[in-house]
Amino acid sequence: MGGTELHPFDPLTVSEIEATINIVKKAHGELFYNVVSLHEPRKAEMTKWLEDPVNVPKPARIADVVVIAPGGKVYDGLVDLQHGKITKWELLKGLQPIITMEELIAVEHICRKDPKVIEQCEISGVPKDEMHKVYCDPWTIGYDERHGNEVRLQQALMYYRPNPDDCQYAFPLDFCPIYDADKQAIIDIDIPKVRRPLRKVDPINYHPAAIEKAGGYRTDIKPINITQPEGVSFKMSGRQIEWQNWKFHIGFNYREGIVLNDISYNDKGTARPVFYRLSLAEMVVPYGNPEHPHQRKHAFDLGEYGAGYMTNSLSLGCDCKGSIHYLDADFPARDGSIRTIKNAVCIHEEDAGILFKHTDFRDESSIVTRARKLVIQQVFTAANYEYAIQWIFHQDGTIQPEIKLTGILNTYVMNEGEDTNGWGTQVYPGVNAHNHQHLFCLRVDPNIDGPNNTVFMADALPSDAAVGSPENPYGNAFYAKRTKFSKTGESATDYNADTSRTWEMCNTNKLHPYSGKAASYKLISREVARLLPKEGSLVWKRAGFARHAVHVTKYSDDQLWPAGRHVPQTSGEPSAGLPEWMGDGSESIDNTDVVLWHTFGVTHIPAPEDFPVMPVEPITLLLKPRNFFTNNPVMDVPPSFASTPSQVAANNNGVLDAADKVSKLAFRNGESCCAVNGTNGVNGH
Amino acid sequence: MGGTELHPFDPLTVSEIEATINIVKKAHGELFYNVVSLHEPRKAEMTKWLEDPVNVPKPARIADVVVIAPGGKVYDGLVDLQHGKITKWELLKGLQPIITMEELIAVEHICRKDPKVIEQCEISGVPKDEMHKVYCDPWTIGYDERHGNEVRLQQALMYYRPNPDDCQYAFPLDFCPIYDADKQAIIDIDIPKVRRPLRKVDPINYHPAAIEKAGGYRTDIKPINITQPEGVSFKMSGRQIEWQNWKFHIGFNYREGIVLNDISYNDKGTARPVFYRLSLAEMVVPYGNPEHPHQRKHAFDLGEYGAGYMTNSLSLGCDCKGSIHYLDADFPARDGSIRTIKNAVCIHEEDAGILFKHTDFRDESSIVTRARKLVIQQVFTAANYEYAIQWIFHQDGTIQPEIKLTGILNTYVMNEGEDTNGWGTQVYPGVNAHNHQHLFCLRVDPNIDGPNNTVFMADALPSDAAVGSPENPYGNAFYAKRTKFSKTGESATDYNADTSRTWEMCNTNKLHPYSGKAASYKLISREVARLLPKEGSLVWKRAGFARHAVHVTKYSDDQLWPAGRHVPQTSGEPSAGLPEWMGDGSESIDNTDVVLWHTFGVTHIPAPEDFPVMPVEPITLLLKPRNFFTNNPVMDVPPSFASTPSQVAANNNGVLDAADKVSKLAFRNGESCCAVNGTNGVNGH
Repeated sequence: MGGTELHPFDPLTVSEIEATINIVKKAHGELFYNVVSLHEPRKAEMTKWLEDPVNVPKPARIADVVVIAPGGKVYDGLVDLQHGKITKWELLKGLQPIITMEELIAVEHICRKDPKVIEQCEISGVPKDEMHKVYCDPWTIGYDERHGNEVRLQQALMYYRPNPDDCQYAFPLDFCPIYDADKQAIIDIDIPKVRRPLRKVDPINYHPAAIEKAGGYRTDIKPINITQPEGVSFKMSGRQIEWQNWKFHIGFNYREGIVLNDISYNDKGTARPVFYRLSLAEMVVPYGNPEHPHQRKHAFDLGEYGAGYMTNSLSLGCDCKGSIHYLDADFPARDGSIRTIKNAVCIHEEDAGILFKHTDFRDESSIVTRARKLVIQQVFTAANYEYAIQWIFHQDGTIQPEIKLTGILNTYVMNEGEDTNGWGTQVYPGVNAHNHQHLFCLRVDPNIDGPNNTVFMADALPSDAAVGSPENPYGNAFYAKRTKFSKTGESATDYNADTSRTWEMCNTNKLHPYSGKAASYKLISREVARLLPKEGSLVWKRAGFARHAVHVTKYSDDQLWPAGRHVPQTSGEPSAGLPEWMGDGSESIDNTDVVLWHTFGVTHIPAPEDFPVMPVEPITLLLKPRNFFTNNPVMDVPPSFASTPSQVAANNNGVLDAADKVSKLAFRNGESCCAVNGTNGVNGH
Repeated sequence: MGGTELHPFDPLTVSEIEATINIVKKAHGELFYNVVSLHEPRKAEMTKWLEDPVNVPKPARIADVVVIAPGGKVYDGLVDLQHGKITKWELLKGLQPIITMEELIAVEHICRKDPKVIEQCEISGVPKDEMHKVYCDPWTIGYDERHGNEVRLQQALMYYRPNPDDCQYAFPLDFCPIYDADKQAIIDIDIPKVRRPLRKVDPINYHPAAIEKAGGYRTDIKPINITQPEGVSFKMSGRQIEWQNWKFHIGFNYREGIVLNDISYNDKGTARPVFYRLSLAEMVVPYGNPEHPHQRKHAFDLGEYGAGYMTNSLSLGCDCKGSIHYLDADFPARDGSIRTIKNAVCIHEEDAGILFKHTDFRDESSIVTRARKLVIQQVFTAANYEYAIQWIFHQDGTIQPEIKLTGILNTYVMNEGEDTNGWGTQVYPGVNAHNHQHLFCLRVDPNIDGPNNTVFMADALPSDAAVGSPENPYGNAFYAKRTKFSKTGESATDYNADTSRTWEMCNTNKLHPYSGKAASYKLISREVARLLPKEGSLVWKRAGFARHAVHVTKYSDDQLWPAGRHVPQTSGEPSAGLPEWMGDGSESIDNTDVVLWHTFGVTHIPAPEDFPVMPVEPITLLLKPRNFFTNNPVMDVPPSFASTPSQVAANNNGVLDAADKVSKLAFRNGESCCAVNGTNGVNGH
């Protein structure tokens, strides 16, 4: 893409990353490159350009840079690429930037050679000469009050593999080395009071050799082919996509992974803005075992490791089927070279079942129209776990973020006969999978017919009037109570299933011609586990965003990540990110440019079915237009079949029959007892 | 299927229905046939036969009969088909059986000729000579205290169609005739105090001629073809299906539609029973407008009309794609002839995305396996609304009932400038769509490794211990609190989103070898709107099942339908069905044969986007095995791609690459700026 016109939302290109590094190198010498990423255009400037790209100058390309200098000194910088200038260079104090894959991978090799780790391995029952069979999942230390945040630390969750292909999570070790990234050395080891030696159980594996040994793969799955002989229904112009009235830009960064910008829906010829920016902005995975040092297991996978940095290279016909378009991701390596992840994002369409259907019972005249969806997907690996992030666009204006959890449980060793005390489940002999939560924070920057929006909470409630009263004689009255969030403090709200609570992002300046209600997008989210670590706990302090299902703030450039810009080793005192931005709760969020932060997710009490690899568990939510379109916006999607009463009366003259002719009966006549005879029955509406 | 061997769960065949009617006719003369349906085998007898079908005699075929005799007399009967004998014949008092399609269709024609209705039409602005343009959606009256339940009544919701192909729901009329099914006459008309004449607005339609007139269909949707060149992966033997370790019987009746029986999962050679019977057993759709007579709008679509009787004839390539197998449904017509619904049930497989995936971050060795699902579907039309009921089976032992709502909103006329008072939304000029709920009751008869099961409620909770206490030093401890339901009274429980509440159907006699927890199926349901009509209201009294999300009863033959056997015109005094069966709450449900009743659904505050036809709104829930399988039960599903660390080390020698070769890049090189070069990148893992 080097030579072509860049969109201001485009991630930095390889040559831009290289140019940035050259400028920084020239000024500051050899450094470790932690981040070189697009510094997103300021909204005020960007909005002007979006409104008039011909006459308004394009926002400049600026690189956001984080480096680690010798001695562990961390610098935040900005590089103006147009002028080849460093415009900001700031030494940070007590802040640790994101841990990169390279830093993670280093730990295991150091561990294997560290005499104290070798000693602990021996105590655990791993002989000295088997240190090549010792592995570790390196995690940031979270926060450990004994070590603070001046030194860059990781904790090494230890495992053993009898064979290099064995699933290590069946063989956890009981101690936890602490790694200093600057010294590249183990500086401490947490050793539990109760020792739990390595359990000598049979490996349990899901790789082909193991399955073949256990009886082989099932042989009764016939192929399902999905083909698009005429190609896809979307168009790409650079990273801008157009599909079924939708138009938006697909960005990608080291931190959030996919970022969608400038989302609009073409409503009968008018491109109506819907969202300025959508992303998964943070997450936290607290574990529920109180025993030291498990409290340190509460990964902020985005802020501490990065959904971009950990993203998988996707594969045609594996991760999705049909006709797929991919986008790559380019990042700096630690040494300033370039690391490219091929196929970091996949884009494809899927058939989505019935879009709408109605039959008139009088004459069986009917219409049935099939739906299509567009999926923008990435999959990232956070050590043991996998997260598939899907941004699903529907034809009717609905956006459905969906997260599929898979991969492997984090595990810890348990002794024979040991009680988990309810903090975990023995999923395999000697393997304790601790209770945990996956809490995600969605950042929604609404732009519902313009930037000035207001958020309301809607609760379905019975009428206050008593049964038998004149206002409610039969007791059936109910309505949606709407509560306006005028100030930030009012917006910190929890989910209420009793009232089927939803939140509405409204443009109160734009009332619907029929309903009189404000044009809105409704947040419908039902998987909203509350943060289970208690108020005042370490996780509660560090993951301030997770205290409520919804917070609303006034828009501010750079308020992107709700646990703060630099998350590793934050103490939570004070809580960084969203709690800061909420301030004293008095800021007005009425009819202005606002951002809605939504925390949702699941509590996971593990079971043996999740081990040694977990079948996908999806979590989903909806952003749905309400009182936004004049009426149903998908009536112009061609139906598969449509007949009207007058056509039925005229013996089905003129009926539209565009049924999918590729579909077949599963069994030919006679092959099954119940196969339908003839064609009439089959196509009968 | 006449000559072949019948399964005791098979619906009555055409010849069995005919034989039943002949026997009844001989004994009782000419009657209106309301129901002739399988009287399901008694469980004790059936269980014995299922255990040993070779030696135990097959349960007899018995027909369940409901007829209406002249004068509106209703009889419940049983006919033993083997002996050709009526074994029960009982005159009912104050009970009205289900309303059939024929009874519904009759009302409109009577209305059009009734002088009082014509008079009201004229008052509303419909001239006498346009009575052929007047339509009605006939509903059961629900319950009207002025009319009781001795006389069989319907209420006629009135509409106008300028043209026979126009959507009538844009033209509601304001009065409501009451129809006596025995007299076949209008006996009363409810006329509102405030009159609302017919609104002369432009029709709004979704039929092809209307879309063409409004600019035509969108032309940018390219085909997605789904083909199964080697056929389907399921086998049918009569109405028994086998697929991916699952085996079960697919029944169908007039009332519930699809009924699944004797569901088992083949766990490494052992067929383990999971559910004895699963069905959608009842539903209620209360409307929230308190104005008379809208309180009567609270359809029990299953008990009052029948999900079987109202089911659509499905169509290849319209309602689903790929290779489809259909089952027909046979019912008696009112006059004793046979009414067959072709393709009442469709059965097909779908690709279901990633089943599991894991990548080792150290070397990018990875596995990715795709999922498949099996869908058993019916779609029924309840006057204005459509419900697509899907029973989705997953390979991992999960069963996912899913309901897709579509069709058309029930509407009422409003005057210009009239306030809806929050009880509804003006979705089109003059069209008030009232707030309503769709509450469904799922009947789950668990058989988790045998009939003796116990239900627990599970709540995710923080530890009681304070932050900083020795038991909870960092405040992160959390666990699942389990509450056993020993007696029926304890089981009447509501959803609690704060604790991510689930319910577990357990076999406490079967503990997992690793976890020590009871083999169970967990009910995970998040769309659990509470019943909004108040305690003591008409709906609350009639829909006793909807008072709580879960009730558990001890199994009893014939306790199938939780609003009672005959639902039309019940007063709710006393509440029929489930409230009766719950009794005083003292019956033991501990380690015995139990039934779980789950009420779930949505509250719908309409918006213009839902009109004139509603894009599908899905509601879903899961029945998920926990501590049931030794470990992940789908590891033997062939992966699309699998490499191990040793294969990566050996330069990918021996890697399993079974990626779908039918999938393609969306754009060929050069056609898009971002297309990937070469194949390596594309298939790179």
